[in-house]
Amino acid sequence: MKLTADAKGTFAIAPTPFHDDGRIDERSIDRLTDFYEEVGCDGVTVLGILGEAPKLDAAEAEQVALRFVKRARKLQVIVGVSAPGFATIRSLAKASMDAGAAGVMIAPPPSLRTDDQIVTYYRQAAEAIGSDVPFVLQDYPLTFSVVMTPAVIRRIISENASCVMLKHEDWPGLEKITTLRGFERDGSMRHIAILTGNGGLFLDFEVERGADGANTGYAFPEMLVDVVKLSAAGRRDEAHDLFDAHLPYLRYEQQQGPLGLAVRKYVLKRRGVLGSDAQRKPALILSAQAKQEVDYLLSRIARVDRRAAALKS
Amino acid sequence: MKLTADAKGTFAIAPTPFHDDGRIDERSIDRLTDFYEEVGCDGVTVLGILGEAPKLDAAEAEQVALRFVKRARKLQVIVGVSAPGFATIRSLAKASMDAGAAGVMIAPPPSLRTDDQIVTYYRQAAEAIGSDVPFVLQDYPLTFSVVMTPAVIRRIISENASCVMLKHEDWPGLEKITTLRGFERDGSMRHIAILTGNGGLFLDFEVERGADGANTGYAFPEMLVDVVKLSAAGRRDEAHDLFDAHLPYLRYEQQQGPLGLAVRKYVLKRRGVLGSDAQRKPALILSAQAKQEVDYLLSRIARVDRRAAALKS
Amino acid sequence: MKLTADAKGTFAIAPTPFHDDGRIDERSIDRLTDFYEEVGCDGVTVLGILGEAPKLDAAEAEQVALRFVKRARKLQVIVGVSAPGFATIRSLAKASMDAGAAGVMIAPPPSLRTDDQIVTYYRQAAEAIGSDVPFVLQDYPLTFSVVMTPAVIRRIISENASCVMLKHEDWPGLEKITTLRGFERDGSMRHIAILTGNGGLFLDFEVERGADGANTGYAFPEMLVDVVKLSAAGRRDEAHDLFDAHLPYLRYEQQQGPLGLAVRKYVLKRRGVLGSDAQRKPALILSAQAKQEVDYLLSRIARVDRRAAALKS
Amino acid sequence: MKLTADAKGTFAIAPTPFHDDGRIDERSIDRLTDFYEEVGCDGVTVLGILGEAPKLDAAEAEQVALRFVKRARKLQVIVGVSAPGFATIRSLAKASMDAGAAGVMIAPPPSLRTDDQIVTYYRQAAEAIGSDVPFVLQDYPLTFSVVMTPAVIRRIISENASCVMLKHEDWPGLEKITTLRGFERDGSMRHIAILTGNGGLFLDFEVERGADGANTGYAFPEMLVDVVKLSAAGRRDEAHDLFDAHLPYLRYEQQQGPLGLAVRKYVLKRRGVLGSDAQRKPALILSAQAKQEVDYLLSRIARVDRRAAALKS
Repeated sequence: MKLTADAKGTFAIAPTPFHDDGRIDERSIDRLTDFYEEVGCDGVTVLGILGEAPKLDAAEAEQVALRFVKRARKLQVIVGVSAPGFATIRSLAKASMDAGAAGVMIAPPPSLRTDDQIVTYYRQAAEAIGSDVPFVLQDYPLTFSVVMTPAVIRRIISENASCVMLKHEDWPGLEKITTLRGFERDGSMRHIAILTGNGGLFLDFEVERGADGANTGYAFPEMLVDVVKLSAAGRRDEAHDLFDAHLPYLRYEQQQGPLGLAVRKYVLKRRGVLGSDAQRKPALILSAQAKQEVDYLLSRIARVDRRAAALKS
Repeated sequence: MKLTADAKGTFAIAPTPFHDDGRIDERSIDRLTDFYEEVGCDGVTVLGILGEAPKLDAAEAEQVALRFVKRARKLQVIVGVSAPGFATIRSLAKASMDAGAAGVMIAPPPSLRTDDQIVTYYRQAAEAIGSDVPFVLQDYPLTFSVVMTPAVIRRIISENASCVMLKHEDWPGLEKITTLRGFERDGSMRHIAILTGNGGLFLDFEVERGADGANTGYAFPEMLVDVVKLSAAGRRDEAHDLFDAHLPYLRYEQQQGPLGLAVRKYVLKRRGVLGSDAQRKPALILSAQAKQEVDYLLSRIARVDRRAAALKS
Repeated sequence: MKLTADAKGTFAIAPTPFHDDGRIDERSIDRLTDFYEEVGCDGVTVLGILGEAPKLDAAEAEQVALRFVKRARKLQVIVGVSAPGFATIRSLAKASMDAGAAGVMIAPPPSLRTDDQIVTYYRQAAEAIGSDVPFVLQDYPLTFSVVMTPAVIRRIISENASCVMLKHEDWPGLEKITTLRGFERDGSMRHIAILTGNGGLFLDFEVERGADGANTGYAFPEMLVDVVKLSAAGRRDEAHDLFDAHLPYLRYEQQQGPLGLAVRKYVLKRRGVLGSDAQRKPALILSAQAKQEVDYLLSRIARVDRRAAALKS
Repeated sequence: MKLTADAKGTFAIAPTPFHDDGRIDERSIDRLTDFYEEVGCDGVTVLGILGEAPKLDAAEAEQVALRFVKRARKLQVIVGVSAPGFATIRSLAKASMDAGAAGVMIAPPPSLRTDDQIVTYYRQAAEAIGSDVPFVLQDYPLTFSVVMTPAVIRRIISENASCVMLKHEDWPGLEKITTLRGFERDGSMRHIAILTGNGGLFLDFEVERGADGANTGYAFPEMLVDVVKLSAAGRRDEAHDLFDAHLPYLRYEQQQGPLGLAVRKYVLKRRGVLGSDAQRKPALILSAQAKQEVDYLLSRIARVDRRAAALKS
């Protein structure tokens, strides 16, 4: 089923599992997919930054995307297809959609500066993948150094009917959600799904501002699922209580670059989901002290959230 | 008393108080100085990024620095003197030290790229202010886009006897503290004070890694003071409990750019310390919704930390 | 006389003369001013990047600007007032205009990214200096990493009646001139003066595209004066012949950063205009081989343009 | 024959020929290869920035590289393999070398900042392609925003025996060549080939400083060949005379980004080498006025260099 502007809930961002020697670990892909379904995710985004996508060659990227797509039963699979050029974007988008992916995600190349450059890029990208392929607009200035105003996002959405979701991870970004939802209310922009990333650091307020859910790689996606649901049910204090219990560790995990990835793979391995926490080069090895810090933080979550207690050691 | 490499504790980062019309508010400077002393800070850093330093002209910068210096009784005052050129740095450093400042802080200009460029810059800056002026090295890649390896920091410290403190706000940065303290242990670097910034987001672990304290603008500096002390006393769980109680709001405040500043001025006004929460242009006005979010977060801290309860409304 | 949108001809960009020990050399300022008048310049821009403006403190900047203003008889003096904040911009603009400057020049701070950020910045800057102060918009993406589309420039000009000149130094930039002149023809933008910088590297075609003249620091401003006049008179081949004779050296001089400055000061000293070719730190010392290369290039110009032959050795 | 540190002469940088509809034009690849051989080039570098490499998908990149390799008789073919990750680099390097390429070229990813990051990157890249694959280190800060000091280049060369050539296109960069050759003379660095790019803008002096030749995409490679030879033969004035005759057009062609590419494809089509001057999207269409400017400049070269006169119109 293709992704639509009515998507909501929690779309996990998946790491790419490797064996210790760097080969792709397909069994762990299967386990990871099952895990996301079991904890209540609505979808999964693969081959994003967290997925070490640039470290795969074209054949490997297709292999990973297709494995997730084939394993997923109810999960919608979104495939990150960002690449330096449209030919590569098109090739991976086509292979993924043919296999049954729900849509693709496209990040802006870091060279974009002006409003027009950004809008033109997405017009050409949408044309490259074809107007029948739903795509997610990724807005992550901290990582891509491309700054999109709400008005630019509106232009992209207006021009491209196939743009159905915003992965919102501007920082600070709460007002941006409010502004975009205001555009919908004043009739100047059609509705799209807004799911939020940035490690989940502001998820508690993002859903209150109008976001439809989470789209991030937090290693306890069940918390994301629950916070989104509690908030949607108007149980504000409970949503914050749960979120706050996880925040000290979530903040630790959300450290930029390879460290955040290393922490997540370490925890997903401890949870029995990944067979190995190996990253491809350039990789960061977690220090013994960092692991102890993570373990300490997890033990503190476990006092409140029993699901975090059930960790393999 | 001049700043030395033995500095420790909590050095608050001060905002610059303005009247609603943009004039400098000297009475609020006095109140702010007294406030930092009352809550147990050991020092205060003025005219940093949070202090809107670039928005002051040369005469105003000197006026602000001197007012803080004159009001302080026990607090050591560090003056941010970062500027595009050495002549401006020298002028403000001289005026500040003559008035009794403890030292100055120098950030790297964003154009620096190579290791040698960074080391050369600090050599020339130290020469410009004079070898008798203690200075703080500010390491904040997220804001300045200058990346200093631990080895580069060691070179700067080795070359410049007047470099006595590191304002550490790399992110991620825990391993950097460990590496620098390792340099001290293996005898390859003399001891310097390491105080940490980055909004305090990792203070709980930074002090465990070897940092000597906090150097940030969190609007409840008493929490910083207590966490630093609890941690130094080996009361780890209590330190984390207190830190975690503040973290949801601390995270909100730590949003980059003018938003974080707006939140802090809003809270310091609510606390009765600032007469106005006005910023100079370019300024960001806090939305009603943002204020409600802050108020909500403060009310949640107040359940645990009674000091946060005593807010003017 | 204040700068207007009818300005044309050659506005030299002046270096700031220093003594060997780094003090400001006021006699050389006088000689430089006279020199520009004698070779036929219409104006001079001081305290730009070439003028090492960031290396001066506030008092020195005012001293330099006022010395140029007082010495000038027919030359219009434009003062670069770019600074990290509006208070500093305002102070120097006021002092300069009070002394008789024709206008000021304002470069964008490197942090600006979106169209709206750029337009807002110039609105606030124009407000800060006052609507009676004519200003030059500097468009130099290579150095400032701020990219202004023609439409953004049009918005700035439309919003700010006091914006009377564009210092055009985008690269590539010929189509931009054509587009802006097209805006004037189609009535969507009022006329402004366009003078071109970027070391003069494309001056031959820039004037053919509609630029009103040159605004750069080439060490033989008489060539700029003549090329602008020849081109205006429709003597295209002669304009190119003269330009091409200078191009090998002009290209050498136009090397980015401190090297270009060092070459220009070296040649202006050889021409007897500057008493010293000293730069303030951070400075670049010209190697013996570089000096020989410059000398060789000047000797080649001298075969064609006798004015280049009259150099002190 | 594999590339060695003794390479010298002129290695053209090839554009990638497309049909008007964007398909790869293999016949034009053949013509282009023959053309480079006929005018006396020693090698050709394909799939560089000028070759629009990021716009090809993996299969197309391999197709283009192999077509050049198969057509070349005496020319050494270097294949640009720069990519966001090592797996993609490895795949293309292997396919190219298996087919008979002489070596590969690797540019640094724009995220690299510190000296150590740069050195580590090249260590891992060299390991990824295998120690038996000779590679060219591309040093082009203007485009990649990665700044390598001479000492960093020396570290890369020392660590990686397979690094045999530097594509030098720092700007300004003459002193860098002198410093690197000085390292060779003082015995601190082994000899490597230095060929220079940056559009050829400083080729006249680069060869005098010690460069072994040219490695750029100038549309009249015969000029590059002759200047390199004249200079090597000590015929300095003749070398400069020829270079200077081309400089006005060379400067025009050397405009950054898609404009320079558009100009070169236009001229190579006029020369009968390319069947079409089409670029893949994002593309820049040359304006009528730009074409007239190019034609004017070519007509001026033709007064001096008869080879430029033989253009199809």
